[in-house]
Amino acid sequence: MFISFEGTEGVGKTTLIRTLYEYFQQQGKDVILTREPGGTPLAEQIRGLLLSVNHDEQMSSDTELLLMYAARAQHLEQVILPALAQGKIVLCDRFTDSSFAYQCAGRGLSREKLALLNENFVVKMPDVTFWLDAPIETGMSRARERGALDRFEQEKVSFFEKVRSGFVEIQQRESQRMKRLDATQAPEKVFADALTYLK
Amino acid sequence: MFISFEGTEGVGKTTLIRTLYEYFQQQGKDVILTREPGGTPLAEQIRGLLLSVNHDEQMSSDTELLLMYAARAQHLEQVILPALAQGKIVLCDRFTDSSFAYQCAGRGLSREKLALLNENFVVKMPDVTFWLDAPIETGMSRARERGALDRFEQEKVSFFEKVRSGFVEIQQRESQRMKRLDATQAPEKVFADALTYLK
Repeated sequence: MFISFEGTEGVGKTTLIRTLYEYFQQQGKDVILTREPGGTPLAEQIRGLLLSVNHDEQMSSDTELLLMYAARAQHLEQVILPALAQGKIVLCDRFTDSSFAYQCAGRGLSREKLALLNENFVVKMPDVTFWLDAPIETGMSRARERGALDRFEQEKVSFFEKVRSGFVEIQQRESQRMKRLDATQAPEKVFADALTYLK
Repeated sequence: MFISFEGTEGVGKTTLIRTLYEYFQQQGKDVILTREPGGTPLAEQIRGLLLSVNHDEQMSSDTELLLMYAARAQHLEQVILPALAQGKIVLCDRFTDSSFAYQCAGRGLSREKLALLNENFVVKMPDVTFWLDAPIETGMSRARERGALDRFEQEKVSFFEKVRSGFVEIQQRESQRMKRLDATQAPEKVFADALTYLK
């Protein structure tokens, strides 16, 4: 089973993923925890390019999108597909939905470009996606408390409102795969909701 | 005018580009010299990922292709398009034809994938492309003399034969844009041939 976790900054994705990871381990399941962009040494190097703040050179939106999919292709081939083939549960922090929400809904990049990258370079989609939803300001203050902000976290509230509308759109279109979790609740309640859904 | 230079390893691309660059400068033309993958600080970082030899993690062919196009999108937006808009001559060491020759003809990656990346992410093609052609062994020995080989240069002769067949195919398909230069000739003669064609 391939489970991805989505949402804007500071909604508690990491906490939920770690709790689920420990839960599956206690159940004696073979489970791996991974993240995007990243998940392999090379893909983490690409992540470094994507997240680092460079005031001298603006990254073009096409470049950002293609780097995301370069990292994703590597992650799929080296980590996700082999783990699934071995019957493992894969918990992945962000996947294609983040590309749609951040690049298309957020930056206004064409949905056609994204669709053709998905069709041609993403050979396996998650079986279940948990979308952790909370008001943007709530998440932003949590992200700011964590320290220095990366290139994405430095975006304005209006950007994240657009990103959130991207997740809303996916959830309406693919309600079978994507489950919305109310991330304003206590972490234990978010975990309980996720578990109920999985059972 | 946008001119690209193509060919397998060690065929003398760099020498020809530099000679043409000096020639245009002497003619009082505004000319820039750039290269792929690379051409901007970020794109050069992507080049670093593409060319570095890593024995612990094999790069997937999709990742290689997407990294090439990520670097290209950045290069086009930041360097090539602004220079052309200012009326400059752009001399570019490798462009999309190398992607076709190395990734499709060389590694067997689907031509459809490449075509859709070209259609969606390459907004400007070269006006003229010079393909420097020489027997693979000639170029390989020149490349070896230059020192440590990068990830591409470490490939076998059979790989470069396939790459060369890719250039043959493009030249047959786009004979208007791509001009074959006999790179077994002396550098002065190769330069003279290129100049004759440009005039």
